[in-house]
Amino acid sequence: MDRRALLGRAGGAATLAAGAATIAAPAIAQTAQPTLRWRLTSSYPKSLDCIYGAGEVFARVVSELTDDRFQIRVFAAGEIAPPLQALDAVQTGSVECCHTTSFLYTGKNEAFGFATGLPFGLNTRQQNAWMYEGGGIELMNEVHRKFNVYGMPLGATGAQMGGWFRKAMGPASDLNGLKMRIGGLAGQVLSRLGGVPQQLGAADLYPGLERGTIDAAEWLGPYDDEKLGFVRVAPFYHYPAWWEGGASTYFYVNLDQWNALPKSYQAAIRAGCAEATHWMVARYDIRNPDSLRRLVAQGAKLTPFSRDMLDTCLRTWLDIEKELVARNPDFAKVHESWSKHRDDMRIWHRVAELPFDNYVAQASARR
Amino acid sequence: MDRRALLGRAGGAATLAAGAATIAAPAIAQTAQPTLRWRLTSSYPKSLDCIYGAGEVFARVVSELTDDRFQIRVFAAGEIAPPLQALDAVQTGSVECCHTTSFLYTGKNEAFGFATGLPFGLNTRQQNAWMYEGGGIELMNEVHRKFNVYGMPLGATGAQMGGWFRKAMGPASDLNGLKMRIGGLAGQVLSRLGGVPQQLGAADLYPGLERGTIDAAEWLGPYDDEKLGFVRVAPFYHYPAWWEGGASTYFYVNLDQWNALPKSYQAAIRAGCAEATHWMVARYDIRNPDSLRRLVAQGAKLTPFSRDMLDTCLRTWLDIEKELVARNPDFAKVHESWSKHRDDMRIWHRVAELPFDNYVAQASARR
Repeated sequence: MDRRALLGRAGGAATLAAGAATIAAPAIAQTAQPTLRWRLTSSYPKSLDCIYGAGEVFARVVSELTDDRFQIRVFAAGEIAPPLQALDAVQTGSVECCHTTSFLYTGKNEAFGFATGLPFGLNTRQQNAWMYEGGGIELMNEVHRKFNVYGMPLGATGAQMGGWFRKAMGPASDLNGLKMRIGGLAGQVLSRLGGVPQQLGAADLYPGLERGTIDAAEWLGPYDDEKLGFVRVAPFYHYPAWWEGGASTYFYVNLDQWNALPKSYQAAIRAGCAEATHWMVARYDIRNPDSLRRLVAQGAKLTPFSRDMLDTCLRTWLDIEKELVARNPDFAKVHESWSKHRDDMRIWHRVAELPFDNYVAQASARR
Repeated sequence: MDRRALLGRAGGAATLAAGAATIAAPAIAQTAQPTLRWRLTSSYPKSLDCIYGAGEVFARVVSELTDDRFQIRVFAAGEIAPPLQALDAVQTGSVECCHTTSFLYTGKNEAFGFATGLPFGLNTRQQNAWMYEGGGIELMNEVHRKFNVYGMPLGATGAQMGGWFRKAMGPASDLNGLKMRIGGLAGQVLSRLGGVPQQLGAADLYPGLERGTIDAAEWLGPYDDEKLGFVRVAPFYHYPAWWEGGASTYFYVNLDQWNALPKSYQAAIRAGCAEATHWMVARYDIRNPDSLRRLVAQGAKLTPFSRDMLDTCLRTWLDIEKELVARNPDFAKVHESWSKHRDDMRIWHRVAELPFDNYVAQASARR
């Protein structure tokens, strides 16, 4: 590095005020940090370069921050652990960390759902707010501790599409008998309305729709959905996904491994997660529009869910939410914080955020 | 640190797969990184703990990531540089870096406006997307290079309130003769509609409104506005701020200083900015609702801007936008990328994001 440039501008056009920057002699005795080689198991296939890629961005940032001393190698779904069992691999310690969707684990404890997003819940902004400043990360880690992991958000998708259907959906009664890939707690809504929820990884969705072993599948949004090819086998493309207002994906690390890390490596993990979250949301927002155009050109029948569908699913979900609060103390504890901030932020966003968004959306549609 | 815990779980309940994690002996010969002490001048007063605090969060993260070797001391507005001249101090090298609002510098080059947000432009999500994955950071740095600085987003406010007025605003003709603190390019809209824009720091707003030397002031949103006491002297609280869909605040570093940093310190700055941005948006979203309630209880007259006000300001702004594209090649170059992504993201957000937000907003208002 150029010591002169650090002390003052080359060429002397300006000089730093005395004492503004000082460089000590390279500190030979500085704390030596360990060299670590970790593995991260992703729940996503390599072909989905946004959601899988967020894990790689995370690992790159951690490596840059530590001068390559802390290196985390990312493995795609199935390489070292099955996509729906990433958490289990981290819990037992067979892999140090993972990048996954927490709602995959609501079968272990429904409270995992909050870390992805609940049906008719928070949007991406609100989820981040609750996580970072509303106590969400800490509350979730009280639950995670029971599974010997420590976690934080790593990535988010934004609001999603409602998925691909072999037949057009009208009223909520059309869900009766529907076999649909739908993740997490939203599956309980589908069940209660007579449907059959399926929990499948990304790679199993296209063959299922093609063979008709499932009637519908929700994955994410246009950019991923285009790669997965759903338009060819289930052309009815409904929106919006009511099952989360914007799914967060999550980083879990084995709790013992986390506790043993030097503080600066813990800071590098937090920073890597923060940067990867910005990156993933941004990349989907930049890439979804062109994919959406192409999907429509390829025959996707873009249709909003009916009002009856949304109202019926909302009512059904609110019943389930209440039952979970009554039945699961972990869910109830997190819900108390989450629902207060949900209600507060909705009021605030109705004043400033939504009127701005709706005005410019309407004005640009008029032009 | 606990070497044993890093190698395998204490108690032997689980062991890491062979080769999953390895620790080399502490690397005595590892690259020694320099000890740096920098100063950051903030454009914000210490009392505004979200916007000023984002600079402190940034500095804390950089310090944690570098084991305290890279320390950045944050100075409030006016302590080492005036709030509206933070960029100048960094440009000349009298201070290494700053946290400021880029629209304060549109008098030097209108293209600075893009780094905060243009009137009727992007919301917070869209601004981040354009910055991180739409080429915004790189395009802006082509402009910034002419001022001998390198920059990136450090914080964002979310959509803002339209400010505090001594008299209620009806049609756009009410702007005629209005002396208003309003930042950046939005001031040109006000001028063209017969008003008198003023560029003032936060500390000068309350006395100006109290003495009547200004008739109105926009600052940010309920949490800051409550601290600044505007409700007592200008109770009409209009919304939304049409002058930006969500202002980003910016980090600038002297270009020579930036180029001379070791790669891991550059990475620490990027990571610090990313974490502070999540933090600032989250903190405002969590704190604004209670402040809004208190302000209304204290007599704030919460009123949306009229349709005529928004439509007239939009038309006026689009004329100015066109003129700037024709007149300023830097503005034109950035605008080409920005406007493409603006239009694309608006289409996409009209499909998934806004229908979700509007549905839950309406449904929760019904209950």
